[in-house]
Amino acid sequence: MSQILAAHPADAVVIAPENHMTIKVLGYAAHSPTDALVPYSFERRDPRPDDVTIEILYCGVCHSDLHTARNDWGGTIYPVVPGHEIIGRVTAVGPAVTKFKVGDAVGVGCLVDSCRECDPCEHGHEQYCDGAVFTYSAVDPKDGRVTQGGYSQRVVVTERFVLRIPEGLDLKGAAPLLCAGITTYSPLRHWGVKKGSKVAVTGLGGLGHMGLKIAKAMGAEVTLFTRSPGKEADARRLGADHIVLSNDPAAMKSVAGKFDLIVDTVPYVHDLNPYIPTLAVNGTLVLVGYLGPLDDALNTAPLVFRRKAVAGSLIGGLPETQEMLDFCAEHGLTADVEMIRMDEINAAYERMLKSDVKYRFVIDMASLKG
Amino acid sequence: MSQILAAHPADAVVIAPENHMTIKVLGYAAHSPTDALVPYSFERRDPRPDDVTIEILYCGVCHSDLHTARNDWGGTIYPVVPGHEIIGRVTAVGPAVTKFKVGDAVGVGCLVDSCRECDPCEHGHEQYCDGAVFTYSAVDPKDGRVTQGGYSQRVVVTERFVLRIPEGLDLKGAAPLLCAGITTYSPLRHWGVKKGSKVAVTGLGGLGHMGLKIAKAMGAEVTLFTRSPGKEADARRLGADHIVLSNDPAAMKSVAGKFDLIVDTVPYVHDLNPYIPTLAVNGTLVLVGYLGPLDDALNTAPLVFRRKAVAGSLIGGLPETQEMLDFCAEHGLTADVEMIRMDEINAAYERMLKSDVKYRFVIDMASLKG
Repeated sequence: MSQILAAHPADAVVIAPENHMTIKVLGYAAHSPTDALVPYSFERRDPRPDDVTIEILYCGVCHSDLHTARNDWGGTIYPVVPGHEIIGRVTAVGPAVTKFKVGDAVGVGCLVDSCRECDPCEHGHEQYCDGAVFTYSAVDPKDGRVTQGGYSQRVVVTERFVLRIPEGLDLKGAAPLLCAGITTYSPLRHWGVKKGSKVAVTGLGGLGHMGLKIAKAMGAEVTLFTRSPGKEADARRLGADHIVLSNDPAAMKSVAGKFDLIVDTVPYVHDLNPYIPTLAVNGTLVLVGYLGPLDDALNTAPLVFRRKAVAGSLIGGLPETQEMLDFCAEHGLTADVEMIRMDEINAAYERMLKSDVKYRFVIDMASLKG
Repeated sequence: MSQILAAHPADAVVIAPENHMTIKVLGYAAHSPTDALVPYSFERRDPRPDDVTIEILYCGVCHSDLHTARNDWGGTIYPVVPGHEIIGRVTAVGPAVTKFKVGDAVGVGCLVDSCRECDPCEHGHEQYCDGAVFTYSAVDPKDGRVTQGGYSQRVVVTERFVLRIPEGLDLKGAAPLLCAGITTYSPLRHWGVKKGSKVAVTGLGGLGHMGLKIAKAMGAEVTLFTRSPGKEADARRLGADHIVLSNDPAAMKSVAGKFDLIVDTVPYVHDLNPYIPTLAVNGTLVLVGYLGPLDDALNTAPLVFRRKAVAGSLIGGLPETQEMLDFCAEHGLTADVEMIRMDEINAAYERMLKSDVKYRFVIDMASLKG
């Protein structure tokens, strides 16, 4: 249908009722915080003139999927189809779509819309828009429907929120770039990391392993903070020049005053005070993994005495996400992934809770049979 | 003596033993954490070739003076002569001094030396040098002597750490610029405040009243956060466009997402969480008044969701302090001061503890008779 629509001039489009297409989709959904994910049939919206319809090939499995499925943060709208690291092929475009055509390899990340008018939106920082519409378990104010994510066959997304996957990027390994990649790329770029910058990454999971790769590709001298001595070989392979055991005070002292930026990917509450002395003058520790109150009283003295900062950062806007994908293609970067079938998702969640994945599960959506 | 030395070429200077001058100085010192300040005679160092000898005219009274006199932060070296908001006239210059001559109006702030070689020193950020020598209660590594501050008749300071007081700046009102002025100017400049920026200042004391004046002169829209409704008229006179009662949740909600920068001058522990929602996307709350652990658990979620930061800032470097003095002269800014005699210092400390000063005591050093 949309190919027919695409033949009309954009300003003359009238979608006749007989052309309305109900897009039936099979996915996997959680129906309550304690239920396993199970097959779930639902409908996507009728495509709007600026919509891209995408057949999903692969979907990365993010910790946020699990947190939302289990309502760890509250506010989950059930049933919920998680998934916001979506890679697919365009199967249809609306008449107002200008950047994509049928057959294109595309991605969709954590956002599917925003107000498009506020200051953050005007600067391409849609992730900081008060009206940002997240890819699942959110209400789309345009039609009041609840968004559903990428653990499914198809998705319909307005063109502005669709990313072009550059030629040559492995599509399976590209899926986690849509969340884990941009979440680490954005602060590295925002805080001006360049050749010679001294960057530390805290934690070696899905986010951390992309942080090492991207920081290294930007030319930084890269250190991994970890509590696990066994991660050294892997960390070096991924881009770390140095490994520092964060629970060893002597090791921490050896990097006092060193880092321009620490990208802290640890997803649970932890004491930031031991890391602050390792920042250089004007250094920033940026949290990308933990949302909640700090248990340990943050000491302000080392912030004042060396003009340091503790900051946060959330995914990235659409232009920056496209920039990240292009950067990754240029540098040959993708995530280290373990492919799973859709019906393995519940077991995968249990393994994620034990950090038993190197470094991201990706669902092969061909395994989801309608 | 130094005028004679100044007649020699710098590379040919030999200070003959008979030319050594012991500079006897009368000051006011604390001899223990619980003693009142009393008259105290001591000696300044023999001037070095790059030293400026200064007759002190006025000295501002900073909360740090009181904290150090009473050893509130630990580490005070007794007896201590406080004072780091020093205004005076040059009475002698060494032969290597190039920027000052006898009779010049000059200032000395919180620093009297640094390593001069590290990265912060090379960038004129001497306040962040690991070898920074503070104006009092510090050991000068060049001669092992303990530094003594501006509650005294004279001071000897290396040229690099002496500031030029621009023509037209009232010398009494200029004294507090050397600490209160630069402490608020530096973060306003570092975080890029310009015409139209939305700035809040928390707390209306010596630092806060300078923060309002300087932010306003930079062209910002300025808000005062205070818990005291009675401060409104004064705050408006000093430059505030708006006054927000920080203990009124409705008032705080009315400025949600507003501020590019909050300069937090509150000198005691306080909960930062109510202020974070008032920051705009990319906004920073910078602490300049409180050194210590936060009692209340800082919530990281609002930092992550809108890329906000909590930072610290310490006074300013020498080039920036000179820039600040020139800026204040250009805009006709000085501190609001209450002049006191040297022998009123102990009573002044008691009044400061009750916030009973608008907004800075300045000692008229002519009242200190040798």
